Amino acid sequence: MTTRVAVVGAGIIGLGIAWRCVQRGLDVTVYDAGEDGASTVAAGMLAPTSEIQAGEEALQGLLVDSNRRWPGFAAELEKATGVELGYRDEGTLIVALTDDDLREVRRLAGWYERAGQPVSPLTARQLREREPLLSPRVRGGAHAPQDRQVDPRRLLTALRHAVGDRIVPRKVTDLADVDADRTVVAAGIGTTTLTGLPVRPVKGQTVRLKAPAPPVRHVIRGYARSRPVYLVPRHDGELVVGATEEERGADTTVTAGGVLDLLRPAAELLPGIVEYPVTEILAGLRPGTPDNAPILGALKDNLIIAAGHYRNGVLLTPVTADLVAELVATGVPPQEIEPFTPDREALWT
Amino acid sequence: MTTRVAVVGAGIIGLGIAWRCVQRGLDVTVYDAGEDGASTVAAGMLAPTSEIQAGEEALQGLLVDSNRRWPGFAAELEKATGVELGYRDEGTLIVALTDDDLREVRRLAGWYERAGQPVSPLTARQLREREPLLSPRVRGGAHAPQDRQVDPRRLLTALRHAVGDRIVPRKVTDLADVDADRTVVAAGIGTTTLTGLPVRPVKGQTVRLKAPAPPVRHVIRGYARSRPVYLVPRHDGELVVGATEEERGADTTVTAGGVLDLLRPAAELLPGIVEYPVTEILAGLRPGTPDNAPILGALKDNLIIAAGHYRNGVLLTPVTADLVAELVATGVPPQEIEPFTPDREALWT
Repeated sequence: MTTRVAVVGAGIIGLGIAWRCVQRGLDVTVYDAGEDGASTVAAGMLAPTSEIQAGEEALQGLLVDSNRRWPGFAAELEKATGVELGYRDEGTLIVALTDDDLREVRRLAGWYERAGQPVSPLTARQLREREPLLSPRVRGGAHAPQDRQVDPRRLLTALRHAVGDRIVPRKVTDLADVDADRTVVAAGIGTTTLTGLPVRPVKGQTVRLKAPAPPVRHVIRGYARSRPVYLVPRHDGELVVGATEEERGADTTVTAGGVLDLLRPAAELLPGIVEYPVTEILAGLRPGTPDNAPILGALKDNLIIAAGHYRNGVLLTPVTADLVAELVATGVPPQEIEPFTPDREALWT
Repeated sequence: MTTRVAVVGAGIIGLGIAWRCVQRGLDVTVYDAGEDGASTVAAGMLAPTSEIQAGEEALQGLLVDSNRRWPGFAAELEKATGVELGYRDEGTLIVALTDDDLREVRRLAGWYERAGQPVSPLTARQLREREPLLSPRVRGGAHAPQDRQVDPRRLLTALRHAVGDRIVPRKVTDLADVDADRTVVAAGIGTTTLTGLPVRPVKGQTVRLKAPAPPVRHVIRGYARSRPVYLVPRHDGELVVGATEEERGADTTVTAGGVLDLLRPAAELLPGIVEYPVTEILAGLRPGTPDNAPILGALKDNLIIAAGHYRNGVLLTPVTADLVAELVATGVPPQEIEPFTPDREALWT
């Protein structure tokens, strides 16, 4: 008999796993609570680098692994669904407004290097040759050619197409109500209520602007007077400005300070944005964990967790989908996810 | 037979005139194009002062006249309709962030004095005694005790109640289609298309925040590094931050620069606003005229204009309603509106 798999959560993580499980011939049902998760707010930068703290080397390895999987994942998903994902590979320009900000850029470049990701310093002149609309006050920066971007809303749409009518509109409030051989909980910040695992909301605000034409080609990761900001351009002229990080519980209000913290540094780095219409201001909740790494693995027999992807959910979708589907299908955890099991000590200290 | 009066335009000016005409026993019909006009975006500061240029003394007189009428108008309208207007008379605090801004405050105080409006200088300490949440960096300012405020949306609601079923949903595109003995055009920026009079849109963006409780009691008219801003507190904690002035035609997009131009100085003067949720960002179109004064009077027999109130529509509603209703009822223009006739030279040079 075909194994019946329930996936609780219809965000990009749950749907990615469901798609891979369908491809493996499993009988999949996805429970969709109908709530907007982190992926509808995310900008979609794919930068496989993080500020590594002691003990986070495993996360760095997973980010790089998933980044390698992205080109194939995007091509396959676009082919399967006909949905264009907005996948782009111009790389990131890292940009500093002041000398102090340049020091921050060097620190960020250090993360890239430690992650084995190439990064080349650029002078102010070289930056403006690549992006003429950058402020003439910009002091310098760097180029990270292996960073990519994707439009998370298109990714969600594509995955919904791929999984199709296996998605059922139902909010699961108790896992005992789920009738399946194996259950995957991919419920983002909802995972805590369902399982007791420590996934907390980390608020992020983003502003979306609409330019008549894309003002920059690259993703810009900028520092302006010590305020970090990123600018993610889409082909249609949309410019996503992100993102704050706020520990405020499950609060999705948009605040004056959030908007200021985004638009002020954005306008210092790319002055032309002041003319652009504001089309959306949104706050989302990233699913954070105590050690900033996702929770991947079996919590108990036939109950598998894929949650807590924090700032890296879009980047980690391919590797999570591949490895968790393998665990679901075989019952054996792939070696790569062993550092991320639900019983690891770092979650509980 | 009762005189049949048509009022084209269902903003606060048109409805104010209609209300007064009904009280005079006229048979009134108001044509409502169903479009949001300037009054739904306006903050509702009632400050009877303007930067008087040569030839604008008459406008100053009209502003002061209407300000005097406001207490009685508000009381009568509230009594007639049961709608509370948010009418408040704490006055305005004028606030300067820097020494340069203090010079701007002195200039503004000069306008008040020339308008015969009392204004008292205040030290930084005195300002913060009145409004403890003002930034400790504020350098000084003044108090204008005779300024008032009203909530323009409540004013609109009250006037709609007062005029009641005499309001007809219909967009008038040609005055020849209007069947009435006398027609009043109070169509704001729509007046140009109907009459050829020079009324142009002047864009204004406002941001509305929602505090848990009002952070200030007074209207704040501030200058922060040469950027002017006003903050109008409502009883329910709403704080209206306004307003840009932009000559961009009939463009009502909200822009990144507009939002920055409001929130940046607002947060410098009242730092606590960064915590407040943003509830609305709106752009409206003020009806401007070449000499910044409204157009009040007969354009030809039985065709009367009441339009072009620019930044002063809310303040000028009582005097406009009273005087234009008198003209409609008697056919004789009150002396006070003579400087504002449609054929005055300043409109056409």
